[in-house]
Amino acid sequence: MISNVLVAMVALLTAAKLGGALAERLGQPAVLGELLAGVALGALPLRGVGGLAFVATDTTIESLAGLGVILLLFEVGLATRLADLMKVGLSALLVAAIGVVVPMILGFLVGQWLLPGRHWFSALFLGATLCATSVGITARVLTDLGRVATPEGQIILGAAVIDDIMGLIVLAVMAGLAGGGAAAAGGAAWIGAAVVTGKAVLFIVGSLVAGRALAPRLFRLASRLHGKGVVFTSALVTCFALAWAAEAVGLAPIVGAFAAGLVLEGVPFAELLPEGDRLEDLLMPLSSVLVPLFFVHMGAQVKLPELAGGSVILAMALTVAAIVGKQACALAVVTRCADRLTVGLGMIPRGEVGLIFAGMGLTLKMDGQPLLSSGEFAAVVAMVLLTTVITPPLLRWRLGGSPGPAPILVLDP
Amino acid sequence: MISNVLVAMVALLTAAKLGGALAERLGQPAVLGELLAGVALGALPLRGVGGLAFVATDTTIESLAGLGVILLLFEVGLATRLADLMKVGLSALLVAAIGVVVPMILGFLVGQWLLPGRHWFSALFLGATLCATSVGITARVLTDLGRVATPEGQIILGAAVIDDIMGLIVLAVMAGLAGGGAAAAGGAAWIGAAVVTGKAVLFIVGSLVAGRALAPRLFRLASRLHGKGVVFTSALVTCFALAWAAEAVGLAPIVGAFAAGLVLEGVPFAELLPEGDRLEDLLMPLSSVLVPLFFVHMGAQVKLPELAGGSVILAMALTVAAIVGKQACALAVVTRCADRLTVGLGMIPRGEVGLIFAGMGLTLKMDGQPLLSSGEFAAVVAMVLLTTVITPPLLRWRLGGSPGPAPILVLDP
Repeated sequence: MISNVLVAMVALLTAAKLGGALAERLGQPAVLGELLAGVALGALPLRGVGGLAFVATDTTIESLAGLGVILLLFEVGLATRLADLMKVGLSALLVAAIGVVVPMILGFLVGQWLLPGRHWFSALFLGATLCATSVGITARVLTDLGRVATPEGQIILGAAVIDDIMGLIVLAVMAGLAGGGAAAAGGAAWIGAAVVTGKAVLFIVGSLVAGRALAPRLFRLASRLHGKGVVFTSALVTCFALAWAAEAVGLAPIVGAFAAGLVLEGVPFAELLPEGDRLEDLLMPLSSVLVPLFFVHMGAQVKLPELAGGSVILAMALTVAAIVGKQACALAVVTRCADRLTVGLGMIPRGEVGLIFAGMGLTLKMDGQPLLSSGEFAAVVAMVLLTTVITPPLLRWRLGGSPGPAPILVLDP
Repeated sequence: MISNVLVAMVALLTAAKLGGALAERLGQPAVLGELLAGVALGALPLRGVGGLAFVATDTTIESLAGLGVILLLFEVGLATRLADLMKVGLSALLVAAIGVVVPMILGFLVGQWLLPGRHWFSALFLGATLCATSVGITARVLTDLGRVATPEGQIILGAAVIDDIMGLIVLAVMAGLAGGGAAAAGGAAWIGAAVVTGKAVLFIVGSLVAGRALAPRLFRLASRLHGKGVVFTSALVTCFALAWAAEAVGLAPIVGAFAAGLVLEGVPFAELLPEGDRLEDLLMPLSSVLVPLFFVHMGAQVKLPELAGGSVILAMALTVAAIVGKQACALAVVTRCADRLTVGLGMIPRGEVGLIFAGMGLTLKMDGQPLLSSGEFAAVVAMVLLTTVITPPLLRWRLGGSPGPAPILVLDP
C-alpha cells in the first residue's frame, strides 16, 4: 500500500532529522540521534500509539532502508582508492582475524561462566555471535567526519570486508557442526566452510579485476546512448548488481556495494557526466534520504520489552566481551601513523550478522534443546544495540581532537 | 527480499534507459521507449524467461514506482505558479467537465452498439471507464519538452486535478447505483457523491490555503535545526504527507503531490538551502531514477495475452471513443493564445483510474451478472495501453514544431 509507505516515510524522515539535529547540537554524530529517534518511534506502539506499528515491519520500508545502507557503502567505496586499501592490507587482515577470534573466545568464556549447565557448544555459539563487525555505523561516522580516506578508515573498511568473509566461514562451520552432531560432521563442516570461502574470495577478486577492466569501456558505451541520466543510472545499476551478486554468494550486499565503488575508480566521470556534475553530488540527495532512513529504521527494530526481559547480567557480560575483544584488534595494526585506538573503536559495532547468528541459535538444536534460549537471544540483541549506540560518541571523542581534512563525502544537500 | 529488489532495479533501470535512449534516437519522447521496454520486459515470462516475472509484481518495486510518479507531479507542481493556474481556471474547469461527460456518452453508445444484450447500466459503466485522464504521461512529456509553464500545460494540469475529483464523483454514483439497484439507491448515491466531492474540494482548498500560509514559517523553523539535509528532507516530507492526505480523502496521491509543489511556491529556498543548491537540482537525481522506474514498471504490467484475448473490436471502438471524446475538450479552451489541439491531445491518456473502474466492474453485480465480463475488462485495459502509448508521439508532433523556452525541469543529471 502506497499510503502506508507514505506515512512511514513521513514519520521516519521526520524522526531521523529531528533526532540527527538534536544529537549534533549535543556534539554527537547525527547517526546516534537517528538511532535513538528510531528506538523512540519503535516504542510508540508500547505506549498505546499503535497506528505506527507497521513502520518497523513494512517490507517496502525495509527494502528502502536496505538500499540506504547499500548506497552508503557505495559512496564509501567511491571515496576509497584500491591502492590505499592494498597498502593497509596486512593490517586489515590481522585486525579482522584477531577481531573474530578474540571476541569469540571471550564470548565462549562468558557462556561457560554464566551458563554452567549448558552444552559447551552453546557457549561457543554465543561467542560466535560476537565475531562480526557491522561496518555501517562506522562508515557513517567516518563519512560525516570526512575520515574515510585516512589510514585508520582504510584499515577498518578493509578489515570489515575480510571480517564478513570470516563470519561466513564461522557460520558455515557452526551450522555444519550443529546439524550433524558436533563430532560426526566435523569433516563435512570444514569442506562446507572451504566452499563458501572460495566463493566469497572469488567474488571479491573477480569483481574487482573484471570490473576495473571493463567499467571504463562499458561506461563510455553507455554514455554514447546520450540518454538523460544514463551515466548516473549506470553507476547505480553497477552498485545494485554487485550488491545482488555479493548476496548471491552469501556475503552481505554492502560488501558488493563497497566493491562497486572501488570498481568505478577508473571511470572518467568528469568527462562522461554533463559539465559541472560530480557523481558524489548526484548521489547525495538519494543518500541524504535513504541513509538516515536505514539508521532510524534500525532503531525502530529494537524491541525494548525483549531487552528488558533478557538476562541483564548476560547482556552486560556479552557487551563487555564484545568491546574488549575488538580492542585486541588495535594490537594488530602494523601500519605506521595509524591510530590504533581509532581502529579498535571502529570495529566495535555488531549488527545484522550477530542477529542472524542469534536467530539461527533459536532454531538449531543440539541434544533436542535449542542452542540459545529466548533470554540468551534477547541478551545478544541488547549487545548489538549497546555496541551500536556506544560507537558514534566514542569515535567522535577519539577523532574530534584532531580536525581532519574537509569532508570527502558530505551527505548534506 | 532485498536481493529481489536489487535484481528488479537492475532489470528495470537498464530497460528504461535503453528504451528511453532508443526512443529519443527515433525522435520520440523517452517515456514512450520506457513504456515499451517495460512491455517487452513484462512479456519475457511468456517466452519462458520466468526468472524476472516478479519484477512486475514485487510490492517494493510497485511502491518505488508509486513514489516515482508522486515525485514527478511534485516537480511539476514546483514548476507551476498558482496564479498562472488560476488564470486558466475557467478553461481547466470546462475542459475537465467536457472531458468527463463526452467520453462517457461515447462509451455508453459504444456499449449499446456492440453489447446489445447487456443491461444499459453495464454500457454506462463502460462509458465511465473512459472519463478520467491520467496526467502522469502528459506531465512527463511536458516536463521533458520544458512546456509545463505554458498556458496549455497549465490548463491540462488544472483540468487533471478537477478531472480527478469528477472521477471520484462518478465512481461514488456508480458504486451507489450498482450497490442498491439502479432505481432504489438513487438518492443515497447522490448523497454519497456529495460527501466525497465535499471532502475532495475541502482537501484541495484547505491544503493550498493553510499550506501556503504555514509553509514558509515551518521551513524557516526546520532550517534552524541546522541539520544536514533538513530543508531538502522537509520538502520531501511535505510532498509525501500531502500525497498521503489526498489518498486518505479518496483522491489520487499525485493530486496531493502536485498540491505540495504549489504549496512550496512561497518558501524562500534560495535563502534556506546551502548556497548554490536549488530544490529542483536536488530532486533531479531522485526523480531521474524513480520516474523512469514508474513508466517501465507501468509497461511491465501489461499482460499481452489478456489484450489479445479481449474483444478486439470493442477495444478499438473504446479507444476511438476515448480519443475523440477528449478532443471535445479542445472546444472548451476559452484562454486566448492557448493551442486547443495540444490540450485535447494532452488529455488523451487514461490510466489507473480507468483500470480501477474496470476492476470494480468485474466484481460489482447487477441482476446477478458482473457489470463487465473478463473480455470487456481486457478491452478496457487495451484502451488504457493504446491511449497511453499514442500520446507521447502526438504531443511531440504538436509541440515539436515551435521550440519552447529552455526546459524548466531537466530530468537529466
